[in-house]
Parts: sequence; structure tokens; C-alpha cells
Amino acid sequence: MKKIKIGIIGAGRIGKVHTDSITFNIPGAEVKTIVDKFMNTEIKEWAASRGILNTSDNPKDIFDDSEIDAVLICSTTDTHAQFTREAAEAGKHIFCEKPVDTDIDRIKETLKIVEKAGVKFQIGFNRRFDHNFRALKDAAAAGKIGDTHMIKITSRDPEPPNPAYIKDSGGMFVDMTIHDFDMARYLSGSEVEEIFVQGAVLVDPEIGKQGDIDTAIITMKFANGAIGSIDNSRKAAYGYDQRAEIFGSKGAVHSRNDSRSTIVLSNDEGVTEEKPLFFFLERYMASFTQEMKEFFEAIETDGEVPVGAIDAIRPVQIAEAALESLKSGQLVKIQY
Amino acid sequence: MKKIKIGIIGAGRIGKVHTDSITFNIPGAEVKTIVDKFMNTEIKEWAASRGILNTSDNPKDIFDDSEIDAVLICSTTDTHAQFTREAAEAGKHIFCEKPVDTDIDRIKETLKIVEKAGVKFQIGFNRRFDHNFRALKDAAAAGKIGDTHMIKITSRDPEPPNPAYIKDSGGMFVDMTIHDFDMARYLSGSEVEEIFVQGAVLVDPEIGKQGDIDTAIITMKFANGAIGSIDNSRKAAYGYDQRAEIFGSKGAVHSRNDSRSTIVLSNDEGVTEEKPLFFFLERYMASFTQEMKEFFEAIETDGEVPVGAIDAIRPVQIAEAALESLKSGQLVKIQY
Amino acid sequence: MKKIKIGIIGAGRIGKVHTDSITFNIPGAEVKTIVDKFMNTEIKEWAASRGILNTSDNPKDIFDDSEIDAVLICSTTDTHAQFTREAAEAGKHIFCEKPVDTDIDRIKETLKIVEKAGVKFQIGFNRRFDHNFRALKDAAAAGKIGDTHMIKITSRDPEPPNPAYIKDSGGMFVDMTIHDFDMARYLSGSEVEEIFVQGAVLVDPEIGKQGDIDTAIITMKFANGAIGSIDNSRKAAYGYDQRAEIFGSKGAVHSRNDSRSTIVLSNDEGVTEEKPLFFFLERYMASFTQEMKEFFEAIETDGEVPVGAIDAIRPVQIAEAALESLKSGQLVKIQY
Amino acid sequence: MKKIKIGIIGAGRIGKVHTDSITFNIPGAEVKTIVDKFMNTEIKEWAASRGILNTSDNPKDIFDDSEIDAVLICSTTDTHAQFTREAAEAGKHIFCEKPVDTDIDRIKETLKIVEKAGVKFQIGFNRRFDHNFRALKDAAAAGKIGDTHMIKITSRDPEPPNPAYIKDSGGMFVDMTIHDFDMARYLSGSEVEEIFVQGAVLVDPEIGKQGDIDTAIITMKFANGAIGSIDNSRKAAYGYDQRAEIFGSKGAVHSRNDSRSTIVLSNDEGVTEEKPLFFFLERYMASFTQEMKEFFEAIETDGEVPVGAIDAIRPVQIAEAALESLKSGQLVKIQY
Repeated sequence: MKKIKIGIIGAGRIGKVHTDSITFNIPGAEVKTIVDKFMNTEIKEWAASRGILNTSDNPKDIFDDSEIDAVLICSTTDTHAQFTREAAEAGKHIFCEKPVDTDIDRIKETLKIVEKAGVKFQIGFNRRFDHNFRALKDAAAAGKIGDTHMIKITSRDPEPPNPAYIKDSGGMFVDMTIHDFDMARYLSGSEVEEIFVQGAVLVDPEIGKQGDIDTAIITMKFANGAIGSIDNSRKAAYGYDQRAEIFGSKGAVHSRNDSRSTIVLSNDEGVTEEKPLFFFLERYMASFTQEMKEFFEAIETDGEVPVGAIDAIRPVQIAEAALESLKSGQLVKIQY
Repeated sequence: MKKIKIGIIGAGRIGKVHTDSITFNIPGAEVKTIVDKFMNTEIKEWAASRGILNTSDNPKDIFDDSEIDAVLICSTTDTHAQFTREAAEAGKHIFCEKPVDTDIDRIKETLKIVEKAGVKFQIGFNRRFDHNFRALKDAAAAGKIGDTHMIKITSRDPEPPNPAYIKDSGGMFVDMTIHDFDMARYLSGSEVEEIFVQGAVLVDPEIGKQGDIDTAIITMKFANGAIGSIDNSRKAAYGYDQRAEIFGSKGAVHSRNDSRSTIVLSNDEGVTEEKPLFFFLERYMASFTQEMKEFFEAIETDGEVPVGAIDAIRPVQIAEAALESLKSGQLVKIQY
Repeated sequence: MKKIKIGIIGAGRIGKVHTDSITFNIPGAEVKTIVDKFMNTEIKEWAASRGILNTSDNPKDIFDDSEIDAVLICSTTDTHAQFTREAAEAGKHIFCEKPVDTDIDRIKETLKIVEKAGVKFQIGFNRRFDHNFRALKDAAAAGKIGDTHMIKITSRDPEPPNPAYIKDSGGMFVDMTIHDFDMARYLSGSEVEEIFVQGAVLVDPEIGKQGDIDTAIITMKFANGAIGSIDNSRKAAYGYDQRAEIFGSKGAVHSRNDSRSTIVLSNDEGVTEEKPLFFFLERYMASFTQEMKEFFEAIETDGEVPVGAIDAIRPVQIAEAALESLKSGQLVKIQY
Repeated sequence: MKKIKIGIIGAGRIGKVHTDSITFNIPGAEVKTIVDKFMNTEIKEWAASRGILNTSDNPKDIFDDSEIDAVLICSTTDTHAQFTREAAEAGKHIFCEKPVDTDIDRIKETLKIVEKAGVKFQIGFNRRFDHNFRALKDAAAAGKIGDTHMIKITSRDPEPPNPAYIKDSGGMFVDMTIHDFDMARYLSGSEVEEIFVQGAVLVDPEIGKQGDIDTAIITMKFANGAIGSIDNSRKAAYGYDQRAEIFGSKGAVHSRNDSRSTIVLSNDEGVTEEKPLFFFLERYMASFTQEMKEFFEAIETDGEVPVGAIDAIRPVQIAEAALESLKSGQLVKIQY
């Protein structure tokens, strides 16, 4: 079987994660070329240790290589739209880290070009491939809880970002909650029609000084009639808290956190289990591999990608509406 | 030691619960007289089986009895204010089932009379005395989770009320969520300043036809800066779902449901624990006894009642604001 | 309905527990007379507070009282056989705390007299009435785990007894494990045919000096072919550990410990639940009431007692065999 | 950094597992040569897909290759001793799947040759590298439960082996329980001095006809004074049940099973979690990788292997003693 050949743009943390997934866990694909704007010896050595000898600082080395089937866009957000466009025009299938852009119109315009090119386009909402969230979705899809009435998502980071980072992050909704907005859509199988945000600065006043919040409870109404909530905090002292619940007419299904081991210590203090996994790469590592596998499967079978163009647009629109609600203090109805 | 002597008005379900708590579990108090508007042989026999021989259909038989120290008002809601007033004027300590009235002004007026009379007044928010919710509060009060950032309450009934009952119930907020409003105040140690309701009719369309809802997610902002949510459903297929979480700067504490036993069945289907207790009296029985104990303790020590006048007013005000938010679809700031 | 009238011999801890169960929780029965060898003012006042005015230091005041239907024998072990005999001869139904005697022949002889008298006889293995162990038994009886292959019992005390007490206790098997031997019979629905003990002194060397052990793992073979184990310790630092598992051809069912509340604290240290209940009376309180209820029900319906003569004999025989195995270091086959 | 070069003898299931661990997860090592007695096209293609081009049916192609640092012996048990000897004589470091042989004397003799050769020798008890069991050991080693009093191991297979397989398997103790014997040594940090077996044929009478058992409870006494038990079944209807507990003077620590996801379904039937992972390769996959990593680390640092010669001998000796106890029905004291 011929291996799918991949070019990766951006050799930062997530670019390396995808490289390793493909190299070590996906026999049917291989990374041929890695491009990074700031290509250096360290990246080259790292690539070589994965058996990848083509490295460059020029994306054209990927776009112009007729052997390469698909491009993974893992560079900074401001370059996503441009690279997506160029990859489409070069006839490459595209996997793009979220978001395509922070501007909705630019996203739409970019995706039109992709559509016209007829290439596959997948957006990087990796949590849909997580074993726990997928098991939730599967249970609901199998009818185990009847009609969906409520979606509840708890999403709390283990540590707040550096306040200096906040400035360019686009704020909590775009930087952090956007995953939860996509998860709400995934678990409900519907679109968010109304949103209301109750936000606060409780973790770090510096975050407030940057004009952002660090704590929020968000309520939503979905097109299918269900309602939902997301609760966010930038700092859960016990680790990375990533849970969800779907409540329906015949029951409910919820997921708990993953931990390093299943041991339970009973002593004078109580009965203590391990904390949730702390680091997002540890918590979600398997999801990144699964995400790649399903992207390649869509290419091989000429099937539908699991997370496509509409999923690249909607969460950004919801994040915008959330920001509007935060500012106005009122319910926002979303016009798509 | 002299026993506290009690008169009970209303021999319905809750009146009987209190009678049994006192008779069987509180050596320091005894029910002397039971009054019910529709006194009959069945009630008399039941009272006799508890050793209570004074029965009547006239509250004056309690108010005019100088031996009686305290009155438990367990009659229908429309009589609470009147009986509270008469009990106060008769110099009796008062325990009144919630709410004192559905009209805020009438509640305030009634409680002024109580205050003037200088008698103890306790309102029947029994969940504050539940072992799980109190353990949550105690953990937070002991500083185990640092500053409070979020309060999350899940409160779902096992079965919807008869739609016929809905009409006179005052709606879900007054009938069901009012306990959660009080719980939010209890767990946060603060007052609700802002409220927003996302409501829906998903359980039973008949409930919608009565102008009520059966599903809701409610967000709140507290005076101390914390934020919170309540999620309600009139029907959880798996039983009475009564949980809460307090999330803070140093961690979080949550409570789970109680069940009939701790057994776990492992078989081909999965690993299955018992459902939550189904019936509210089974779930909260111990809390009713504790509620009485602390009421009597306040009388004996001339101390403060654990749930007093302000607690009789605030949850009704919050319920009113919730209804306003539901109707307007907007955030409501509460003016106390 | 006529109440069953009870006489209680022995106003120690367990006599008081039964008195309170009957007085406060069992409307259909009442304690008429309490006898204690060392009757004093304190006991009299306590009895009076429960409405019991007949107190005495002479058991004849119970045996000769034609109004009294049943006797609860809660005195010291050395008096059980004699009082059982006298109660039987007086035609009273009998509830006797375990064991009837430490000598098997004397137990058998005593129970023959009981049998001849035609009165009900129940032995005080209260754990059979515990909500968790009964739920285990019910699940197995309902066929949920198929044929029984293994019984596993974990039974660990929160604190070792005073070494001074060990001397007269008859040793760990008679004092503590005897409950587990009965539980093994209850859960397996079969009799122990073979027993092997691996014992140790690990908690307190003083216990070893008294010729006893404080830690043991015991294996058993049952008449129905199943096998089983009991693990005992005199000291579990985290509280009173009382669990069991039935493993069968279609699955397994196990019980966990009870705790004071269901709260879970998540912080930097881990995710911590409450410890098991510490004190046996707290852990097993409800079982004592249920035990009484079913004894009275057997009397009222002239039905079979739930724990009868054979249950008074077998566990003592097993304890003897266990001691023999401990001493010989070998497997012991039990001859009944 | 120079990669450690590996030769693998035996391209069956476990040989392939190790190949993949090394190829995909251990950058510092690589499989150079794969040898299988029945080398064929299928194995060659599989090897090629992992980038391994040297394949052969002759172990000499490994032993005589001066580039190869270490040999993994993954062939059938009857060849382990011979290949271990030859590898040692060729100066290769050795990782051998358990057992080295079924005959104690032959194991000892073989390991003497290894010792003389001065090469590393690691035996394949992979469960010591499992995240749960290692976390148990670490907690005990960190003093969290004080002195060890009891070790309890539950080890139940999801499905019995084909009775035809039983014949050559050496019986349950050598085939299945041997892992638990090693685990008992690992968790206790001590050696088994006494063993008693209570065994039964409850799963499949055909297993009994082969002279083997399928259900057992085994008790042990350790050199450090602690006692322990292992319970085995060849068939747990709910999946592969792999748990352990260490109980000590200051508390206890136990591990639970791993499952596919953390989801919990609440419905009319109860509150249901996922079953334990069913297949041993799924359950223990990560442990196989860790096992290899630590073997290679011992080579690189010229350090001690984590599971060495003594661990290759002791569990086989315990299994022999267990068989003796099963046959005699008596306690067996082990002479090492």
C-alpha cells in the first residue's frame, strides 16, 4: 500500500506532536517535508531523529512537491488562511489547526477557495477524537439517553496563561472556550442559537487588566431545543479538568477525568485517588493520533472529513457572540 | 430536663414527617397538639399511635395553650402568613414551611410582626441540614478550597408533577428551584445579585401549556464576586439527582447522590452501581430531623436560628427575578 | 393492633441499642421491662427517658411476667445459655446476642431445650440485616452473577482491643471473625467444609503475648463447591473496613464501605472522598433495627426467624476449626 | 547518540509487541534482525513495514552479528534456556520472556552461564512496569501506608484457555498465576516462605479432566512477616480483572481496573461504568514499552536490570510449591 505523504508547516509543539503521531503510530502515512519559518539546527536534528530529511523555511517546498498529498498547517494563527489558500490552490489536502482566522469573513472566503479546489479540509478540533468525549457522543447516538435535553461542559485549565500572552490570544473565548463551543456542537449534534455569558476575573487581576476574564459560566440554547452550559476557569488547583455530561429523556451520560493511575490510597486523611492529568498534551495525546488517522482515512476513501469547513466557522462565530454577550451583559441570538 | 412542647398545624405529609422526627428521634421535645383543618379519624389514630392525644381543627387550641413553646406551620402555603402572625402574637416560637407567602410584601410584613414579638422564626429549607450539602459547606468554610469562584447545583426531580398541579404551584421556580436558590446562597455565603434563565419545555408539553417550563439552566452572580449555575429538570430517568459543587482558588469540593446500598455489579453489561434514591423523603429524611434539632437548640439556648427571616425572603425574591428573566429573555439585576 | 411486649436482660451498649430501635423505630413493639444484674440509678433514668418504668436486677421479673412475649438476651456471654434455657422454659420467644456459649455441646444442648419449648429463637448476627450485605445476597439470589464461585470478605477493625480484653475474648476468631464466618455462610448459602488460616501478629505484639493474633487471611471451601477468603486486621488506619464480594459464573458483585457524606475534595493533593465510618454502631445501626423488625415479624406471623439455631452453632464450630488450623498450620476439614 | 541494536528471536505475538514498542516508541533502540524458526513471507512483510530488512530462520544470524547489542528471546518456552545460553556465550545482553525453563535446575544452570558471561539478563515480568501496579509499589515505598501487613492480588482472566492448550501449558500456576507470584514478591518486597492453595474446577469441567484447576485462592506468608492472598479465575464475565492491594500499618493502597473510557451512564437500570479492558495486550501494552525502556537503560548505564536472575527463578519455585500444596491439600514451606 502506498503511504500518504505529508508536508508539515510549523515545527512548534503541535507540529511535532503530529509528526510523532504519524511517524510512530500511523504506518499508512509519512512526513516527507517539514517547513518552519525559523528553520534551525535543532529542528533539523529533531526531524532527522524521526527519519525526516527534507527541511526548509519555504512552504513552496511543500506546495510544489507533487509527491506530497496533504499539508498540515501548524504555524501561527495569522498564517493559517494564507497557507490554507496556497495549499488548496496547489491541490493538496489540508489539515489546519484552529482557527483558520480570527475574522469570520476571511475564514469563509478561504474555505470557498478550498471548496472550489475540491480538496479535503479538516480543522483541528482534536477533542472530538478523545476517547471519553467520543464515548459520550456514541452513547447518545446509540439512543442510550433518549432525546437530548442538556449539554454540560466543564473545562478548566490547570494554570492561567502568562498575562503577557493574553493580549495576543484573542481572549479566553477564542483561546480556550472555542474548544468547548465545538464540543457543545459535537455533543448536541446541533447549532448554538442563543448564548449568554456570566464572566468574572477571579484567578488573576492582571488578566482583568488586559481586558479579559478568567472565569465564566456560559449558557446556550441549541437549534434542536436542547439547552447547555459551559463552565470555564483558567486555574483548577487540582489539574486539567475536562468533563462533560449529556442529559436526556431516558437518562444521562457523563465523563470523568483521566489520571495517571487507578490507585486509591486509604489513610487517616481519607480515601484519595490521583489528580486529573495536568498537561493538555498528556491528557489529549491519543486524540491527536486519532485525529490524524481519520483525516488520512477520509483522503484514502475519498470520504467525508470528521471535522470540516462548517466546524471551522461556527465556533468562531459563537466565540464572537460570547464576547458580545460578555460586553453587553445580555443574551445574544446568533445569526449564521 | 423539661421537654420543649410543640404544636403542629397541618397533618399532611410534612407535618407527619416532623411529628415522627420529634417523637422518635428528639428526646428533648414532644408534640403536644396536632391541628388540621380537616381533622378526621385517620389522623387521630395516627396521632394516637405516636402518643399524641390532643387533636383539633382549631389553631387556637395551640395558640391559646400556654404550655406550648413552639408552633410548626405545615399547612397549605396560603395559610402560612396568617398562622405565622397569629403564632407570633401568641408569643410562640415559629417554624414555618417555605414559603411564608408568594407575595414579597406580605412576607416582609409578616416577618416584621414576628420580629416585634421577639420569638424565634425558622423557615423550612431542610436541605441546608442534609449531610452532603452541609459537608460541602463545612469543607469550604474550613478553607479547603480557598476563595469561592463558582457554585454549581444540579437539581433534577425523578418525575414531573401532574400538569394539573402545575397551575397552583406558582411554577417551577417557586415550587422546585426555590430550594436551589436557597442552596446557592448557603453554599456561596453570599446573595444573588444577577440572574439569567435559559428555560425550556422538554419533559412534558402539557407543562408548557400551563405556561410553565420543565428544564432550565440558570446562571447567577453573587455579591462576593463568585458566579454560579443551577440546572433543573422535572424528570431524571435515573432518580432524584441532587448534587452540588463549590469550586475555588485552591480546589473544588462536590457531593454525589445517595443510594440504597454501596453494591457494584460487574457483568457483561458493565460495572453498575445503584441509582440515586428516588423519593425526596427518603433522600432528605435525616435532614428533616436535623432541622428540628437545630430549631429546638436555638430555642433552648436562645441562640440564632440556622435559617431565619432573611432566608424566608431572599429565595422568593430570586424566584421572582428568575421568572422575570425567563419572560424577558434577559439578565435581571436583583434589587433587595 | 396489640404491641409485642419485650423484656431485655442486660442494659449494656447493645441492650440500649435494641431498646432504642424498638422505642423509636418499631411502632409494633415495646420494651416493658429491663433487667440488669447491676441495676442502678443511671440505667433507671435512661430507661425512664424511653418511657420504660419496669426495671429490675432479677430476670424472673421478665420470665414470670405473662404479658411479656419475647426476651432479648444482651447480658455477658457466660449467661447466655442459662437465660436462653430459662426463657424457653418460661415460654418466651428468644433473641440472643451471639454466641449462645463458647462450648459447642452446651450450645446444642441449650438449643434442644429451645426447640422442645417451641418458641422462636434468633441469634444476633446483625450484619445479615445490613443494607449493603443484604443487597449483595439479593443480587446473587436474583441470579445476577450466575453460580457462585468465590466469596471474599474484608473485615478490618478500626482499632485493636485493649490487650487486657483479649484474654477473656476467646481470641480473634470468636470475638471478631465469627461475624465473618456467619457472613460467609450467608453470602454463599452453603456451609464451610474446609478451612485454612494464615495468621500473624503485626498490629500489636502485646496481642501476640496474650496468645492471640491480630491479622489473618483465611481460606474456605464450601459444601456447594465454591471457595472463599476472609481477611482480617485488628487495625485499619482509615476506619472500619467492612466489604464483601461474590464472584460467579456470570459476573461479580461487591459492596463498598459507607461514609458520613458523599463529598469529594479535589485539590493539589489528589481527589479525596470521606473515610469509612469508624464506629461499628454507626456503621451497623440500621441493621440492628432491621434485625429486630424481622424477629418480631417471625413472632407475629409465626414464621421462620431469619437467623436461627443452626446459625448459632455453625459459626462457633468454624471458629474452633480456624483456631485448630492456626495452631497446626494445616488445613482443617470440619465435621458437623 | 548510537542506537542500541536488537535481535529478536521469535516473531509471534509477543515478539511483534516488542518490535513495535522499539520501532515506534523508543528512539534510542532499533531492531536490526528478526529470527523465526518458521520464517515466512508474512513475517518478512510485517518486518519490512517496520523498516526491518534482516530476517532469518537461524539464531546464529543474531549471535554472530557483532553489531547487535542485545537479544530478545520471544520463542517457545522449550527454547528459552538454550537461546539464553547461546546469547550469553555470544556476549549479548539478554531479555528473555518468562519462564527461562519449567525445570528449576535448568534455570539455575542457565543463569550461571549468564552470570559468568557478565551480560545483562532481564526476565519478562511485564506487569511490574504497569502504571497501576508500579504506582502501588511507589506509594508503599514512599511510606504512605507504613509497614506492609497484607498483599492482596485479584487476577482473573476474561476467558478460559482452550482445554487442548491446557495440556502443554504446565497448568494454571505456571501459565497464569506465575505473574501473580512475581507481583506478590514485587509488591511485598519480600520472598514467599509459605504457601497454601484452595483450588477448584468451577469454570469448565474439561479443564478438570486435563488435571488442572480454573479457580483458586492462594495464601502466602512472606519472609518479612507479611501475609498475602491471590485469587484466580480463568473466567471473569466482565473482563480482565487485574487488581491489587497493599495493606499496612498506616493505611492501604489499592488499584482498580483500566477501562476504555471514563464515561458513566445513569438510567433506569443503574449507574454504569465501562467494563475493564478485556484483552491482556490492550491492558498491558504500555507496560511492555516501559519494560523495554528500562532494559535498554540498564544496558546504557551499565546499571542493574529491574527484573533479573533471581526473579527468573523464584516465581517458578513458588509455582512448584503451589502445585504441591494443591496436590497435598496442605501448607507448603518453600526451601530456596
